[in-house]
Amino acid sequence: MEIAKHPSIDSATVTVFDGNTVVEKQDFLAVEEPLEIRVEYGPEANRITQPLSITMRTPGADEDLVRGFLLTESIVKNASEIQAVLPVSQNVVLAQLVPTARFDMARLDRHFYTSSSCGVCGKTSIDAVQSASPGKPILLKNSTLSSEILCALPDRLRQSQETFEMTGGLHAAALFSWSGDLMALREDVGRHNALDKLIGQHAHSGHDFGDTILLLSGRASFELLQKSAVAGIPVVCAVGAPSSLAVETARSFGITLIGFLRGKRFNLYSKPENMEIGV
Amino acid sequence: MEIAKHPSIDSATVTVFDGNTVVEKQDFLAVEEPLEIRVEYGPEANRITQPLSITMRTPGADEDLVRGFLLTESIVKNASEIQAVLPVSQNVVLAQLVPTARFDMARLDRHFYTSSSCGVCGKTSIDAVQSASPGKPILLKNSTLSSEILCALPDRLRQSQETFEMTGGLHAAALFSWSGDLMALREDVGRHNALDKLIGQHAHSGHDFGDTILLLSGRASFELLQKSAVAGIPVVCAVGAPSSLAVETARSFGITLIGFLRGKRFNLYSKPENMEIGV
Repeated sequence: MEIAKHPSIDSATVTVFDGNTVVEKQDFLAVEEPLEIRVEYGPEANRITQPLSITMRTPGADEDLVRGFLLTESIVKNASEIQAVLPVSQNVVLAQLVPTARFDMARLDRHFYTSSSCGVCGKTSIDAVQSASPGKPILLKNSTLSSEILCALPDRLRQSQETFEMTGGLHAAALFSWSGDLMALREDVGRHNALDKLIGQHAHSGHDFGDTILLLSGRASFELLQKSAVAGIPVVCAVGAPSSLAVETARSFGITLIGFLRGKRFNLYSKPENMEIGV
Repeated sequence: MEIAKHPSIDSATVTVFDGNTVVEKQDFLAVEEPLEIRVEYGPEANRITQPLSITMRTPGADEDLVRGFLLTESIVKNASEIQAVLPVSQNVVLAQLVPTARFDMARLDRHFYTSSSCGVCGKTSIDAVQSASPGKPILLKNSTLSSEILCALPDRLRQSQETFEMTGGLHAAALFSWSGDLMALREDVGRHNALDKLIGQHAHSGHDFGDTILLLSGRASFELLQKSAVAGIPVVCAVGAPSSLAVETARSFGITLIGFLRGKRFNLYSKPENMEIGV
């Protein structure tokens, strides 16, 4: 069966209890496997290759994932600093940076908000993201965002979310145009990976995020807002709840943050003053 | 209002759209803040303090979280190697190991499955967990696990899950006895943190996990099964779907793994041969 060969889907023998009967059957599972990202950088005469990160991910869009990860973690300043992303083996990829890209492994070891000298608090994290962000402003749309369009997004996401339908096991991140058309959708066992895949693919195609709406199938955490902020996404919608630091981050960056987007209702947690939600 | 002072719950002004009306109201948010874990180790004459990890967590059970993290990441071999866990500031804690504890920072930098020399695959990850595990066997119960008791667990979890009810924003991990009594419940914005809090608290009380049932409010990932395996939990139930690697890990360790535990039904993904599920 062709579906079983899909890199995101595995199958397993499962015993199903339904209260009355017990049946053995073949069921589908979302694939979760580690991906090692290696980075090659430095001037042409002196290229260095180093392991960068390991993430548990669903295979299938590894190149997009790596491009998005490099961008949203501010390891590169923009998509053009990534020369190529090459598979090394099934679960290892090599990201080659252009010779002029400034890459500082020591800075990464500390990562954004791991500076123990300044104490750790939400405020510090947001400051760190702000300084790590490539400085793209979040575009403030001087237009009206339609609540009707917003409320239609989750259904459009579900209609396109194939792997989830089969496995029940994946987070999704989808990008919509201002008028509610689905532009791209990515799925992963990790919500941050689904977003990295989406951002990596869109940025690699040469697009920016100035007039896009992001929809997250689950909850909105700090990490997802941080990645959205670095990419420059102006509107982030989540089917689930946002965390306190997600709301704080959205407010700091002027991101319109919508939560509990279900049926005909939603909560609005932040928006720039010059944006209107038309009911 | 007392609830607003709870460390796990924040409040924010939210604009609620319900399809017809727009109302401003105060709503509750699950708190998400970074926690820096520092570790103090070495012989009494030469104690060393180093930053170990930063995790985004919901405040409220930081000591449990740190104890569980140290155990399930195999940084300590057992709970008695942790001398004390002390708050340094609001979002920084210090874990003091006993002078005899063997702590190797260099090994941690590579972490379990980050050895790039052997390639990265699911199999390698499981081997790494197996070698990192303190060698406790998962107890194989020669008894019958009742499907009636299993099906009652999610309702018992929800009845006790206060913060989720208020914020909609938290993952939960709960420990039940073999007869279905709730022993402990922990919540967090991060599912791995909820489990670390639960394991940290239970192990610190001097209990083992040989006759416990773990219930996860969401999906079951590799990481959650890995932590359960290291703790020695024999039965893991999830309200959501397991990933492929979660199933593989459960089968390797002889953990009974149940998914989609909802209403009167569930899926059984693995169990030791000498365990029966009584329908």
